Amino acid sequence: MDIGFIGLGEMGGAMVANMLKAGHRVRVWNRSPERAQRLAEAGAVVVATPAEAFAGDAVFSMLADDHAVREVFDAPLLAGAPRGLTHVNMATISVALAETLAHEHAHRGLHYVAAPVLGRPDVAAAGKLTIVAAGPAEAIDRVQPVLDAIGQKTWRIGSLPQQASVMKLAANFMLASAVEALGEASALLAGHGVAMQDFLDVITGGLFTGPVYSGYGKMIAERRYEPALFKARLGLKDVRLALAAANATHTPMPMASTVHDSLVQAVAQGDGEKDFAVLGEVSARRAGRA
Amino acid sequence: MDIGFIGLGEMGGAMVANMLKAGHRVRVWNRSPERAQRLAEAGAVVVATPAEAFAGDAVFSMLADDHAVREVFDAPLLAGAPRGLTHVNMATISVALAETLAHEHAHRGLHYVAAPVLGRPDVAAAGKLTIVAAGPAEAIDRVQPVLDAIGQKTWRIGSLPQQASVMKLAANFMLASAVEALGEASALLAGHGVAMQDFLDVITGGLFTGPVYSGYGKMIAERRYEPALFKARLGLKDVRLALAAANATHTPMPMASTVHDSLVQAVAQGDGEKDFAVLGEVSARRAGRA
Amino acid sequence: MDIGFIGLGEMGGAMVANMLKAGHRVRVWNRSPERAQRLAEAGAVVVATPAEAFAGDAVFSMLADDHAVREVFDAPLLAGAPRGLTHVNMATISVALAETLAHEHAHRGLHYVAAPVLGRPDVAAAGKLTIVAAGPAEAIDRVQPVLDAIGQKTWRIGSLPQQASVMKLAANFMLASAVEALGEASALLAGHGVAMQDFLDVITGGLFTGPVYSGYGKMIAERRYEPALFKARLGLKDVRLALAAANATHTPMPMASTVHDSLVQAVAQGDGEKDFAVLGEVSARRAGRA
Amino acid sequence: MDIGFIGLGEMGGAMVANMLKAGHRVRVWNRSPERAQRLAEAGAVVVATPAEAFAGDAVFSMLADDHAVREVFDAPLLAGAPRGLTHVNMATISVALAETLAHEHAHRGLHYVAAPVLGRPDVAAAGKLTIVAAGPAEAIDRVQPVLDAIGQKTWRIGSLPQQASVMKLAANFMLASAVEALGEASALLAGHGVAMQDFLDVITGGLFTGPVYSGYGKMIAERRYEPALFKARLGLKDVRLALAAANATHTPMPMASTVHDSLVQAVAQGDGEKDFAVLGEVSARRAGRA
Repeated sequence: MDIGFIGLGEMGGAMVANMLKAGHRVRVWNRSPERAQRLAEAGAVVVATPAEAFAGDAVFSMLADDHAVREVFDAPLLAGAPRGLTHVNMATISVALAETLAHEHAHRGLHYVAAPVLGRPDVAAAGKLTIVAAGPAEAIDRVQPVLDAIGQKTWRIGSLPQQASVMKLAANFMLASAVEALGEASALLAGHGVAMQDFLDVITGGLFTGPVYSGYGKMIAERRYEPALFKARLGLKDVRLALAAANATHTPMPMASTVHDSLVQAVAQGDGEKDFAVLGEVSARRAGRA
Repeated sequence: MDIGFIGLGEMGGAMVANMLKAGHRVRVWNRSPERAQRLAEAGAVVVATPAEAFAGDAVFSMLADDHAVREVFDAPLLAGAPRGLTHVNMATISVALAETLAHEHAHRGLHYVAAPVLGRPDVAAAGKLTIVAAGPAEAIDRVQPVLDAIGQKTWRIGSLPQQASVMKLAANFMLASAVEALGEASALLAGHGVAMQDFLDVITGGLFTGPVYSGYGKMIAERRYEPALFKARLGLKDVRLALAAANATHTPMPMASTVHDSLVQAVAQGDGEKDFAVLGEVSARRAGRA
Repeated sequence: MDIGFIGLGEMGGAMVANMLKAGHRVRVWNRSPERAQRLAEAGAVVVATPAEAFAGDAVFSMLADDHAVREVFDAPLLAGAPRGLTHVNMATISVALAETLAHEHAHRGLHYVAAPVLGRPDVAAAGKLTIVAAGPAEAIDRVQPVLDAIGQKTWRIGSLPQQASVMKLAANFMLASAVEALGEASALLAGHGVAMQDFLDVITGGLFTGPVYSGYGKMIAERRYEPALFKARLGLKDVRLALAAANATHTPMPMASTVHDSLVQAVAQGDGEKDFAVLGEVSARRAGRA
Repeated sequence: MDIGFIGLGEMGGAMVANMLKAGHRVRVWNRSPERAQRLAEAGAVVVATPAEAFAGDAVFSMLADDHAVREVFDAPLLAGAPRGLTHVNMATISVALAETLAHEHAHRGLHYVAAPVLGRPDVAAAGKLTIVAAGPAEAIDRVQPVLDAIGQKTWRIGSLPQQASVMKLAANFMLASAVEALGEASALLAGHGVAMQDFLDVITGGLFTGPVYSGYGKMIAERRYEPALFKARLGLKDVRLALAAANATHTPMPMASTVHDSLVQAVAQGDGEKDFAVLGEVSARRAGRA
């Protein structure tokens, strides 16, 4: 397919590489052009403006947050796009913005699909992302071959793009909650002289298998929070978006509020750039032991 | 070995059956004698008083809570026991009582091991429990053959019995937190028309593998909380014990407080005997949707 | 003085009446013109557009929320205003919007003062409002005679308009916290058969004097939440703005999060239009007693 | 009347002095006898054992906590007391212990009144305490003249002694909540450069009159927490008792949980002996500003 791609961070760059490998033609644009050059060597066509990328059979985008998305996909860009174009937005954005973008695209005769992904850069590089897609079924059908090039599985969640956003945010809320729970458990154990690593050995053996508990748990056990797999600052952003999505339908989430407050504390105390496993340190500080 | 066993609920009964199968001689006592009779058919020797069970090479106990433990293991029982006897307490009790019992046993020349288990009755029946043991190493060494008959693995956590209690309570706190997180996520998703089962399919595929998320998650997705695997009333008891253990060392656990409050709510609203996945219902009620 | 006034709700209408009484000339504008007509009888000059009100020596505004403020004070209105005009915004708005408006006014050569008020419509009618003002001192000096006509006291908080917003939001957070505390105390007492009114008699006698505890406490004691002095929906709005102001400087406010969640619950359960003393009902429902 | 008095701390000593002034004969006992000697000079009869004080027309007690109460009022003391004796317990104790003591006294033919007081030592010295009494009406009638000597008003709450305990605990929960709210408001304001003292001036002028907000607020504004009027450690004890009383009737109190966690934090971070206004410091530390 003839694809545009906007946003070439670590995640976006890995996706483009896999699209190229799968034989697609990809026009790429990034705010800072250096990143685009590297992909040119792999066969991508570097374009000078978002508008040149926002064309062809379909365009994919992977930008940092609501602000970046809002800046690029403005009214002139949408107005200038060829009717019938499908835009697949893979960024983790607010439910409110997802809803707004869906309306704006529809209004211009464009198809809008939200397809946030679960998985970190190494998973993206391996083409093994989990993709959560929502939007018009035919639009997703059209881009499915491209999605297959970057993910191991595409889950179709619903016909409203914001539904994919809310699911992604719910997943990240679950993640942050598990990390806060590990942090508090660690403080509880430390108070009684029990080693966190012993605890992890016990619970990851049967109760809590999977990478979350062993991975973030290990960081807490070793009190090493760098390099960050998921920065506290970004974890806070996503929990905040989850709370905003809940508020929009008057849904109290007291545990999410608690995790939010702990993450604010992490950032306030200077740990925003560390992995959000630093919640273990927040718990230790609360107990006067850090 | 010549073993005594006190407390023949579902868990205790399954353990005794496996001890008998492994060739140990077991004297059993239970407050309500019917349960003991069933084990007699499998070869257990039914005794009439706790004191008769509290003798031999070692005695194991599996009672419901602090109150039941405190009632049986009173001063006269300990005073009448043969010096050097090893008592392995497998109940989930408070850290404070574990500490008290350790002192009382030592004072009487008895060895005290705390060995709470992870796993439900079906796991106990299969002899596959995860055992968390703490206490004097030689005492654990002595009873290890019996522990091997009931569990797939014994983790040795420390030399102070209460350390096993705190680890068990930390594990159950983690469990309750995961269930509350599932409940809140479910309410968030429902507000935006996303199916909980779709969410579970996505997260249990890679992020949150293991039985906790799929099992309790399914109950929440189907809004069916019976039969209960882990009753809300008992989940509340354990979270309360975790908070008490944290308080004893001045360790704030805000997420544990939040889970506690949700579990109190479940019990107050009449759901104490349902599975603690009923936290999903508490979340729905908070959002005016139940 | 020659004054414009925008926003003629209950509060705004009462303020205009007092300004007229004090001898000021007031041009008034309101989205729905009926309210303006009533003030015309008292001597106000009704104008047809916000721009006609946004002129003269100074203009005051009292709109409902961020959205209403943002809609009226748009770029064209500010661009068309006479340079040197002082705008006194008395609405309770977000700290972020206060900051934005301050910049936008300064950019156009306009003076911007934030002067939110404490007090309900009956206090406004009596000209006894407490005014919290922030902005350039000379601008406040200029409008002080008008402020004196509507309030019993003007507190000058700082030179940045958003500082008045944050103080107003902090006050309303205190208020909502006191009401939630009353609600929880009421549930605690009810569980033990103690009458809430007895409790109020005791605490308002010395510990908690002042109208907050006796007034909202009485509503909780009588379980009557209408007519609403302060609607739950609006209380939620203000607590949310307080949390947003705190988040902007990475300040965790766990109690504010708790009050927020209770207010969301009130609204979700259908009580948004009732007085926020309905938090007493939320507490009762949590305890399965409503 | 012929009175016994047990427990001569600052509060108890002040009460005895006022009882003597009113013409009552008072036998006094205290664990550490020095305190008793000082009262001897004022006319009290110092006795050597609690049993000698636990006699006469009525006996009053003012001990520190559940532990101290439980140690003194044991089975032998109650068994040896003259039938028909009225015991007025003025300590702030748990609802559970109040209930137990009521049963034990009734069983021995003794009358038991719970009469915790509101007010600090200076108020006690002035004989102006607020007394919250619960128990059999005739028993309270009998001791009313003595209560009148130490308090400005006796509120009769109910016929069950634990009802007075729960009311006292509810009042102290309200107090701790107000202080936490002040602490969080202070952190919110500090983040935007607004002076806490300005805020206090505004809110204590009309909204929050009374000594609580001005007194504890001033400590937070000045960041001086000594000398302590109400120690953080004791505030924590009372909030914990309030939560225990709530739990006994399955009443969730999420705000109380939040205040509890902040007080645990204060104690864990070394501030247990400071005034509980040190919650302001806890808020500042959470925001990385202390």
